[in-house]
Amino acid sequence: MIVAMKSDATEREVYEVVKRISSYGLNALDLPGGERHAIGIASAIPPDLRETLAEVVGSMDGVDHVTHVSRKYKLASREFRSADTIVCVKGVNIGGKDVVVAAGPCAIESKEQLNAAAKAVKAAGGRILRGGAFKPRTSPYAFQGLGLEGLKMLRAAGEKYGLVTVTELVDQHDLEVVAEHVDIIQIGARNMQNYPLLTAVGKSGRPVVLKRGPSATIDEWLLAAEYVLAQGNGNVILCERGVHPLDREHTRYTLDLSAVPVVKAISHLPVIVDPSHACGNWKYVPAMSKAAIAAGADGLLIEVHPDPSEALCDGPQSLKLEGFKTLMGEMKLVAGAVGRGMV
Amino acid sequence: MIVAMKSDATEREVYEVVKRISSYGLNALDLPGGERHAIGIASAIPPDLRETLAEVVGSMDGVDHVTHVSRKYKLASREFRSADTIVCVKGVNIGGKDVVVAAGPCAIESKEQLNAAAKAVKAAGGRILRGGAFKPRTSPYAFQGLGLEGLKMLRAAGEKYGLVTVTELVDQHDLEVVAEHVDIIQIGARNMQNYPLLTAVGKSGRPVVLKRGPSATIDEWLLAAEYVLAQGNGNVILCERGVHPLDREHTRYTLDLSAVPVVKAISHLPVIVDPSHACGNWKYVPAMSKAAIAAGADGLLIEVHPDPSEALCDGPQSLKLEGFKTLMGEMKLVAGAVGRGMV
Amino acid sequence: MIVAMKSDATEREVYEVVKRISSYGLNALDLPGGERHAIGIASAIPPDLRETLAEVVGSMDGVDHVTHVSRKYKLASREFRSADTIVCVKGVNIGGKDVVVAAGPCAIESKEQLNAAAKAVKAAGGRILRGGAFKPRTSPYAFQGLGLEGLKMLRAAGEKYGLVTVTELVDQHDLEVVAEHVDIIQIGARNMQNYPLLTAVGKSGRPVVLKRGPSATIDEWLLAAEYVLAQGNGNVILCERGVHPLDREHTRYTLDLSAVPVVKAISHLPVIVDPSHACGNWKYVPAMSKAAIAAGADGLLIEVHPDPSEALCDGPQSLKLEGFKTLMGEMKLVAGAVGRGMV
Amino acid sequence: MIVAMKSDATEREVYEVVKRISSYGLNALDLPGGERHAIGIASAIPPDLRETLAEVVGSMDGVDHVTHVSRKYKLASREFRSADTIVCVKGVNIGGKDVVVAAGPCAIESKEQLNAAAKAVKAAGGRILRGGAFKPRTSPYAFQGLGLEGLKMLRAAGEKYGLVTVTELVDQHDLEVVAEHVDIIQIGARNMQNYPLLTAVGKSGRPVVLKRGPSATIDEWLLAAEYVLAQGNGNVILCERGVHPLDREHTRYTLDLSAVPVVKAISHLPVIVDPSHACGNWKYVPAMSKAAIAAGADGLLIEVHPDPSEALCDGPQSLKLEGFKTLMGEMKLVAGAVGRGMV
Repeated sequence: MIVAMKSDATEREVYEVVKRISSYGLNALDLPGGERHAIGIASAIPPDLRETLAEVVGSMDGVDHVTHVSRKYKLASREFRSADTIVCVKGVNIGGKDVVVAAGPCAIESKEQLNAAAKAVKAAGGRILRGGAFKPRTSPYAFQGLGLEGLKMLRAAGEKYGLVTVTELVDQHDLEVVAEHVDIIQIGARNMQNYPLLTAVGKSGRPVVLKRGPSATIDEWLLAAEYVLAQGNGNVILCERGVHPLDREHTRYTLDLSAVPVVKAISHLPVIVDPSHACGNWKYVPAMSKAAIAAGADGLLIEVHPDPSEALCDGPQSLKLEGFKTLMGEMKLVAGAVGRGMV
Repeated sequence: MIVAMKSDATEREVYEVVKRISSYGLNALDLPGGERHAIGIASAIPPDLRETLAEVVGSMDGVDHVTHVSRKYKLASREFRSADTIVCVKGVNIGGKDVVVAAGPCAIESKEQLNAAAKAVKAAGGRILRGGAFKPRTSPYAFQGLGLEGLKMLRAAGEKYGLVTVTELVDQHDLEVVAEHVDIIQIGARNMQNYPLLTAVGKSGRPVVLKRGPSATIDEWLLAAEYVLAQGNGNVILCERGVHPLDREHTRYTLDLSAVPVVKAISHLPVIVDPSHACGNWKYVPAMSKAAIAAGADGLLIEVHPDPSEALCDGPQSLKLEGFKTLMGEMKLVAGAVGRGMV
Repeated sequence: MIVAMKSDATEREVYEVVKRISSYGLNALDLPGGERHAIGIASAIPPDLRETLAEVVGSMDGVDHVTHVSRKYKLASREFRSADTIVCVKGVNIGGKDVVVAAGPCAIESKEQLNAAAKAVKAAGGRILRGGAFKPRTSPYAFQGLGLEGLKMLRAAGEKYGLVTVTELVDQHDLEVVAEHVDIIQIGARNMQNYPLLTAVGKSGRPVVLKRGPSATIDEWLLAAEYVLAQGNGNVILCERGVHPLDREHTRYTLDLSAVPVVKAISHLPVIVDPSHACGNWKYVPAMSKAAIAAGADGLLIEVHPDPSEALCDGPQSLKLEGFKTLMGEMKLVAGAVGRGMV
Repeated sequence: MIVAMKSDATEREVYEVVKRISSYGLNALDLPGGERHAIGIASAIPPDLRETLAEVVGSMDGVDHVTHVSRKYKLASREFRSADTIVCVKGVNIGGKDVVVAAGPCAIESKEQLNAAAKAVKAAGGRILRGGAFKPRTSPYAFQGLGLEGLKMLRAAGEKYGLVTVTELVDQHDLEVVAEHVDIIQIGARNMQNYPLLTAVGKSGRPVVLKRGPSATIDEWLLAAEYVLAQGNGNVILCERGVHPLDREHTRYTLDLSAVPVVKAISHLPVIVDPSHACGNWKYVPAMSKAAIAAGADGLLIEVHPDPSEALCDGPQSLKLEGFKTLMGEMKLVAGAVGRGMV
């Protein structure tokens, strides 16, 4: 941590800052520059002290601003664990050599719709079936999902077609029933900083897909993961799904694919990509799916629907079943080109 | 191009828009809808005319806007309710003629700290005491609040100093205990799209301060309010607290004050402003507080702390008690200049 | 400047960085922390070395990232000049006690239009007449301005009504003719980083209104000002006009009023606000104009038009002449409330 | 709600959309325009139907998009020219089957540096040599380039190694001398809306690389291209280089790779990607280069330097010569996987 003093800070103010830092048992060094003093901390700051210390010092007289040098998260960092984390669910490894594809409808609408999707996902080489039973919708007037009935359909389809299942959890109250029916719990972008939900999922020990919030920096995203990891649940899969867009005209969000190599560099957690929500338009999903793999993603989360024009949710961004099959073939080629497999 | 007329546009104004469009040799069709007239152009508009035409027509009497569709929310709109909503809590009116100030520490840390703040808030003319008992923190290692103990302190301080109280609710499980101790429930920016929480608060009927999420558009914010309103709870106070910043160097978020006149134009709900979280630096809080009032805000939510350098949370953005007193005097002058009172 | 090393940097790499910094005659201190080493520079770094040094060191093996502690600009900073700069043009002081209002049409369209606006601006208490002769338009098919004819009209109107004049310069080739006809040269947001243009205007010595680019941080804006100041031209007036918007639905840009107190704190240059371009809708201009004054702005740049519905450019955001008169009265009250005058 | 049909939509598809809308009890009007059919709804749509209906209709065959108006640009659009534009420079085709790589140092520093880079670019299979002679720098104190001397070095290196050359033009005054020495003129991101510069380059008829401004929407970018095209110069190559970042911590800009398939869908112009400026860190350049090709980019613009730690400009984002060679091999595999060549 580095404390930049104001250019007109007094010697006394510099002294008080050094004294305060020292009172925590830390070693503070005064670095007098041309325009101002800076104060560096030459000791390890315990994670639970970092934010507090920055705020305490940041409020002191004569202080201009405080800069963190070390990361604020710990368990999610490469420094803590240098080897890649592989999340294994019923024999499917996420974060290993193979690129894993999860696909399915945005919302589960009926047994027929879900089974048609599941059959096609399996046939094309997908390993995970996605489907929403509880839908968080921007408008209270939009379709909100089938709830428990949907969960039952998802479990049945997963069992019938030999697919791992994933669904979004929106409400803590539903954690138990979701965990009972589904293999992987998804935390949506809107809930990335819903800390009670993160903590509950952390305690459950279940594999978690943690979507990045649309205005979250990468550090804020990893701190959200830290909430799950801090409960002893190491099965966290990060999912990039697009950030606040510069341009809402052609895509819903801006898919930040550079987050993939950045996360791989600073964290050991697997990272997958959801191009469907980011693009908001099925036309752009194939290009961005292939780009995600080329960028190093460990997997994809893709929306497919037997008949998008009848979809109750996110039809415009859903691939048809044939389009998905074609894309799977194309993705396999790209995976091979970057030294990955795709079973 | 589609021209949406104002809902109170006259037949004459509709006629003039059609006539103006026709004067360019274009075929304009009047589409009378349920709420308003829309005018569609059933001809090819030459590229060099498009922008000009949109601007020309957009400036005509009776025209609301060009190109857009009807709003997605209903109960929150001015079309639904034309008169300003005034939320009345224990005799304090939010959304009426007077600008109402809520102030207090970010986090409740002790009885002494809270009472010192409450006393100063009351003395300076504040009407509402804010204080966090459950703190949603970006890092799991940061101070998370005193919980129930904090709520008890807040109720006691409110009663002792005759102040209405407000605190943030993070977890549905705490709704009952929060509602029992505190007058107004705050939904934080991170939870703006936590729909189960919004629905629960809607059902409770309690007054709600709904903060805008940092990447939420104004329409998304009003749709979140719609979740509360749809439960029959009309006591919603909107709170602008800064959006995703272009510049994280000098402020934490960009306070979007234009949201104030926009919300007042399209919705009947009261809107207040939290300059402390947006600025992240107490130095800029006075300027932005006065600007908020000049922009038409119905109230302010300001962080004050008896000793910011000892604060466990957000010290750098908290005003000292004297600074708050001075600011209250300055704000009163600005309120008067824009025809508002401040008791 | 602080250099954060990677957590796995070797002692040799740390040594090389210290050695490289020392080769510039600077004093480098190694700060070993818990996870990583940081290296601080405890000497004044000359401005022309700062960026180069950061890049050189940032490319070295073992370096994670480089953080600046001191500002990159010099002449624009409060540290360089502590007293407020007052730009004086024909007796009008920008940056002094009085709030100064510049107003007029977006584009000069005719003598009649301009004179009608000028007359109203003068009568209402405005001091500066704005009007565009060279319009940089997003589309090549939009009206591009009257050019030299417009400049002549502007000079004539300024003389007739006793108003200082300001117009935008888009092309270096027009600098001489613009300087000959107009008092203040405006650099538009699109040209904030057009360095040849900034340098040319710097050399001219003429007062400059420098608009902030829509994606420019405050530091980038001040560095653009530095290009003008570095030519010995101290007459720079900064103008906030809205940044890249989160929400393009209701306003064109997000007016970042917090830039006003931030700039006043870190720079000595005057700062004015253009609410018209930011809002893109005349309805919101009065609220934001008053808010700008309350936030501490030294002046305003407002679009007014005798008949917005006939305007060739930006009609929807232009106030009518009566609306402007009313606003001037309202602004005067707010200026008074914050201890400013408005003649 | 307005539904814009595809320009090649069949009468049957139009009929189906009208029929679908009518099935909700709504009155749909077909508005046949010059380029395409649009369908307007002349009834009040209940709030709870609006989103659903937009999604349902948006997924139907023949529907291009819902709610939007016709594009503001013409010459740059696919509607104007359906076949891909291939810009041919000295036998190198940009926009054809092969992915073309341009590489070289950010700034030309010396004959030795440039020749070392050129030799390596050629040997690795690059076709175009990039090098800056006029550098637009954020700070006036940073290295501004060698000017004419640099241009001469670039021409010589291009001739010696059989490479096409590209350099940035910052100032109109330098157009002639740049055109005399260099094959392709680059317009930088800061100058994307410098209309006199765009017009001048348009008149020159020379091939142009037009970088996207960091806060430019795709439509604004295509409108900037329109300025060049409108002068009769069809040799425009678009270059995505990152937009205003959500997160400045790990990358300088957010590389918006979804712009690649979007531009390919709505325009006939070739689009290349500059991952170096966006990432600001050479570590992430390989991943994003491969992702760009997978997303459909026609080429890449990559910074390489014989010794990045001695670079006068942008060293941290420059690949070393060996790293570039390795990357070229990897990119060739990805190009092959998406059916492209790379000579």
